[in-house]
Amino acid sequence: MSFKLKNMNTNTTTYKQGITLESGRKLSNLTISYSTLGELNPEKNNVIWITHALTANSNPEDWWNGLVGKGKFYNPEKYFIICANVLGSCYGTTGPLSINPDTWNPYYHTFPDITIRDIVQGLDLLRKDLGIHKIHTLLGGSLGGQQALEWAIQQPEVIDNLFLIATNAQHSSWGRAFNESQRMAIKTDRTWYSSSDDAGLKGLKVARSFALLSYRSYEAYTSTQVDGDNEVDAFKAASYQNYQGDKLVKRFNAFSYWHLSKAMDSHNVGRNREGVKQALSTIKAKTLVVAVNSDVLFPVSESETLHQGIKNSELAIINSLYGHDGFLIETESLKTVFENFYKKENTNNKRTNLKIAI
Amino acid sequence: MSFKLKNMNTNTTTYKQGITLESGRKLSNLTISYSTLGELNPEKNNVIWITHALTANSNPEDWWNGLVGKGKFYNPEKYFIICANVLGSCYGTTGPLSINPDTWNPYYHTFPDITIRDIVQGLDLLRKDLGIHKIHTLLGGSLGGQQALEWAIQQPEVIDNLFLIATNAQHSSWGRAFNESQRMAIKTDRTWYSSSDDAGLKGLKVARSFALLSYRSYEAYTSTQVDGDNEVDAFKAASYQNYQGDKLVKRFNAFSYWHLSKAMDSHNVGRNREGVKQALSTIKAKTLVVAVNSDVLFPVSESETLHQGIKNSELAIINSLYGHDGFLIETESLKTVFENFYKKENTNNKRTNLKIAI
Repeated sequence: MSFKLKNMNTNTTTYKQGITLESGRKLSNLTISYSTLGELNPEKNNVIWITHALTANSNPEDWWNGLVGKGKFYNPEKYFIICANVLGSCYGTTGPLSINPDTWNPYYHTFPDITIRDIVQGLDLLRKDLGIHKIHTLLGGSLGGQQALEWAIQQPEVIDNLFLIATNAQHSSWGRAFNESQRMAIKTDRTWYSSSDDAGLKGLKVARSFALLSYRSYEAYTSTQVDGDNEVDAFKAASYQNYQGDKLVKRFNAFSYWHLSKAMDSHNVGRNREGVKQALSTIKAKTLVVAVNSDVLFPVSESETLHQGIKNSELAIINSLYGHDGFLIETESLKTVFENFYKKENTNNKRTNLKIAI
Repeated sequence: MSFKLKNMNTNTTTYKQGITLESGRKLSNLTISYSTLGELNPEKNNVIWITHALTANSNPEDWWNGLVGKGKFYNPEKYFIICANVLGSCYGTTGPLSINPDTWNPYYHTFPDITIRDIVQGLDLLRKDLGIHKIHTLLGGSLGGQQALEWAIQQPEVIDNLFLIATNAQHSSWGRAFNESQRMAIKTDRTWYSSSDDAGLKGLKVARSFALLSYRSYEAYTSTQVDGDNEVDAFKAASYQNYQGDKLVKRFNAFSYWHLSKAMDSHNVGRNREGVKQALSTIKAKTLVVAVNSDVLFPVSESETLHQGIKNSELAIINSLYGHDGFLIETESLKTVFENFYKKENTNNKRTNLKIAI
């Protein structure tokens, strides 16, 4: 499970006191791995904090390279860009493959269930540690957006601009059913019950192939997986499912996948806060909600709920063939809506609740 | 794998000469199990032939009971209703659990790959055997619609009315990807490699839970799987996925599922017929194409392709919360569109290419 993050400065901070999770369980010795690009300016007002999705890492220059990097929209010559690997993952931050300091063995099946709030607790520890009092823009898509939203509710004074992309206020029953079926696939793999880094990888392959269908769309498949006229078997779409499954297995593990999908399921900003509406109403950040028109997993209606609930917000709907994955692919469209949003801020325009389809 | 079909007369016919499959492989000793309701009238013009979907059986009174049965739209007092269990299934017709007459053992992993055309070959053998020269109405949904369409191309003179419901002319890359991921789940179950009736059942459970998501919709899940406000785990949608998987495992087997999903993937009426357009243009039946507006697996666009390609056709789009499964659930809407269709025929109205949304 080795990894290398190009260009970025990658650092690791360890909190020996650990954290108490939402469940009440204690996680001792939390390590957070994070990457930075650029420098914090003297005014400390150029922080772009990016929260990442399910299987990504702390290097957005790698997985969001249309947006982040030298000469890109988020240029390290102007901004201090930071992204931390999430709790439960496997790219440097404490996760199920980490050594449990109490037993000196990897956690594996004993890793505690975590929630989005637990992940955000880790992010906020890191923020304070780095002396960051203001985040110019906090942005993330999918599970990354869930973290960003939760954080904006927990720390309403810290975040100036909040970009919530292809995400939701509460994970849907539909999304939870997708995640459960994926965990069922992992459980079907007998190796899942072994205590080793590669437990359940065959099941993980199936889970990923299935997840992919929720990340894409009918149109994306029919336009990219095209067969000859007279085939009876060995269709391109079938080998694509296997290929994508194998690809993830080479860089991820079934334990992290299990726990992060459960964290996603747990997402509900309204929990013990008198509901979603009440929770969203406490957000102070100027908020841009971005939906992808063909997103099957986080449909536009969920972005509309965010937009309706967040006072100072704008909704943009991006047209894409690629479904949920559009949030990673359509960086040109994202740039356009981000730019428009910032422009209004700079000219002191009154914020309007405008639906932008580009 | 026992089964009981209530009310209907269920018969079995065996063709000792067998059939030669599209692949060139020979299947010896084909048995077809079929059920009938009502009597063939002296004019032999009251045949309603129903083709069934992936995991169904030859008893539409069971799985389409809003439409078929005493006092229902397809009433056995008026019609001779017939439905045959498809080749490759496990409700009486030859399938992977049947005894291979060449080895005296069940086929299991040696059962040959079959196509929709092979299934239809079996249906047409049975039809001739029963002395049926005209089918008043041939109808089916999903895999059943694929058979009905293929049959109408193979035997254009036999079918008077053709109702194609939630189906397509060629299975899509999207559909094939869904099916492949389900077969990957079966392969992940180590018992799949054993030679027994219950091989791969744990994988089948996962496959079914995946499939369910393609049969339903976001709205169906969010409106029926509703949790309390403060849950963190054990969500209703998760137990629903397990429940539905377990339910299928009790009445089906992984071998039939594997082969019927491959038959579905093979579906392409244009294969070796100069393409889909050309194949559709040979249909002579008066055709009603019915799509479900929320169908994720066989989207409305596929019904539009059918409608555009079949000369004498009409398209109806049914509104439903239930996605693809709407074709089984929305029997009231189906009755309405069927009734409208027949009425026009009776009054000798000119057929119009009308899009009906009800």
